[in-house]
Amino acid sequence: VQRTIDWVDGSVVIIDQCALPGIYRTLRLDTVDELIDAIARLAVRGAPALGAAGALGVVLAARAGGAVSEEAARVAKARPTAVNLSWGVARALAKLPEGVDAVLAEALEMLRLLTHCNAGRLATVGWGTALGVLWHLRAGGFVDSVLVDETRPLLQGARLTAWELAEAGIPYRVLPDNAAAAAMSRGLVDCVLVGADRIAANGDVANKIGTYGLAIAARHHGIPFVVVAPQSTVDYSLPDGGSIVIEERSPVEVTHLAGVAIAPPGADAFNPAFDVTPASLVTALITETGPHPA
Amino acid sequence: VQRTIDWVDGSVVIIDQCALPGIYRTLRLDTVDELIDAIARLAVRGAPALGAAGALGVVLAARAGGAVSEEAARVAKARPTAVNLSWGVARALAKLPEGVDAVLAEALEMLRLLTHCNAGRLATVGWGTALGVLWHLRAGGFVDSVLVDETRPLLQGARLTAWELAEAGIPYRVLPDNAAAAAMSRGLVDCVLVGADRIAANGDVANKIGTYGLAIAARHHGIPFVVVAPQSTVDYSLPDGGSIVIEERSPVEVTHLAGVAIAPPGADAFNPAFDVTPASLVTALITETGPHPA
Repeated sequence: VQRTIDWVDGSVVIIDQCALPGIYRTLRLDTVDELIDAIARLAVRGAPALGAAGALGVVLAARAGGAVSEEAARVAKARPTAVNLSWGVARALAKLPEGVDAVLAEALEMLRLLTHCNAGRLATVGWGTALGVLWHLRAGGFVDSVLVDETRPLLQGARLTAWELAEAGIPYRVLPDNAAAAAMSRGLVDCVLVGADRIAANGDVANKIGTYGLAIAARHHGIPFVVVAPQSTVDYSLPDGGSIVIEERSPVEVTHLAGVAIAPPGADAFNPAFDVTPASLVTALITETGPHPA
Repeated sequence: VQRTIDWVDGSVVIIDQCALPGIYRTLRLDTVDELIDAIARLAVRGAPALGAAGALGVVLAARAGGAVSEEAARVAKARPTAVNLSWGVARALAKLPEGVDAVLAEALEMLRLLTHCNAGRLATVGWGTALGVLWHLRAGGFVDSVLVDETRPLLQGARLTAWELAEAGIPYRVLPDNAAAAAMSRGLVDCVLVGADRIAANGDVANKIGTYGLAIAARHHGIPFVVVAPQSTVDYSLPDGGSIVIEERSPVEVTHLAGVAIAPPGADAFNPAFDVTPASLVTALITETGPHPA
């Protein structure tokens, strides 16, 4: 099975998530610049995959020689909100005094971890850990079907989550993000399951834009709102969600789709990649070690 | 100024709202079938414009001869939720005993009404009446800028509302629908302004999908949620929102965009065109006769 991100013959190899679901292909990344570009374009994305990407970025930098710390810092900053990226960089960088092979060993260790919590093909990208839980619930007979928010602007739900569910044979329907509250009011939703990109010490959750609105709507309807994330996503250095830096992305992601303008020429956009859901709206936070004390 | 819908030399002429904002063009509709097709494709849309479309449909049927009542019934059913469509049909049909000219006079009367509450170019289509209020607030110096929900799946906000605001020189930003709650939590929203497609006797509001989620989020943040609609949108025959029929549209609107597949082949979708916001979440309902007693 092709991993979402892997180390093959001295290169980083990723599944190109920008091309899915139309085209399934892998990309070979040989330089730090190529890796940073892939991270920025979201060709590789999702909390656990970004941890591995960060570590492998340090490997690429170390093998190229030069100013490894500076190169590692550039990788860590490629996206500001996802804590796993800088976590992966820091973990690999700590091995640099022991030599390049030790850095590589550390990065490969993270790839193995990644496979541990990966029950599907892309299951540790973005909604990945949440989908991992979903596979288990489905195997236990608890899941009839899944409503997949399309997740504008980059449509990770419609393109990637739907693709994974289709591969796994789990019935699903895609819906516009703005139809989620209507689905809840019709009794179509028993539980909302999301991932996380960074979690503050008090349990506030930064995740893909739209998560906060879902949490408010779930609370309004008395529906459990469950966050699933690796333990490494909890950033104990941040007291609460107010101190989480939110990545603002290009207006073009909103104003254009598949190269076609969907807004008037010169239209500006409000395009935060993430929002923050306060711990008070989270019913449960599940990590690989079990429920997290919120 | 080109009207959103008009009667010119024996034909219905509409601004093709499917082509905006990329292409600005008008369409000439000479038959009931052409009109129904334009309504179904949303080439003409929005509560007040649909009222006029319904009336003009009766004119087309009456001039063609044949079974006018049956043809009128087909027009009225072209979209099930928008009450103005069947209201316009019924109002024009009531004049049929007086002859075709009386039907036409009634339809033209509705066009004039339409112009009354139309302060912008497309201002009485969809969010139109809400935008009419916006022009007035802007003229009074009360509006700095507007956040425009893109309004998936058909992007009426990004394509049409943004186009109108750009024409009017009002600063705006387009946002993914799922970013609205984040904008509220950042203090960027002072008031939510929406239109309505049908309002039940108790004040429950059926409007474009996503309205309900906005209302829940507005309530959560203590932000006023204001509905603006023509009096004709209130359907006193319906006790509450539970009896409003909600139009389900093709999954293709969700799974494809600008002809490009954005979900895996065979993906199904949940695609209600409208949702129902309970009166309890509506801060105020404004019609052309002033605040409506909810």
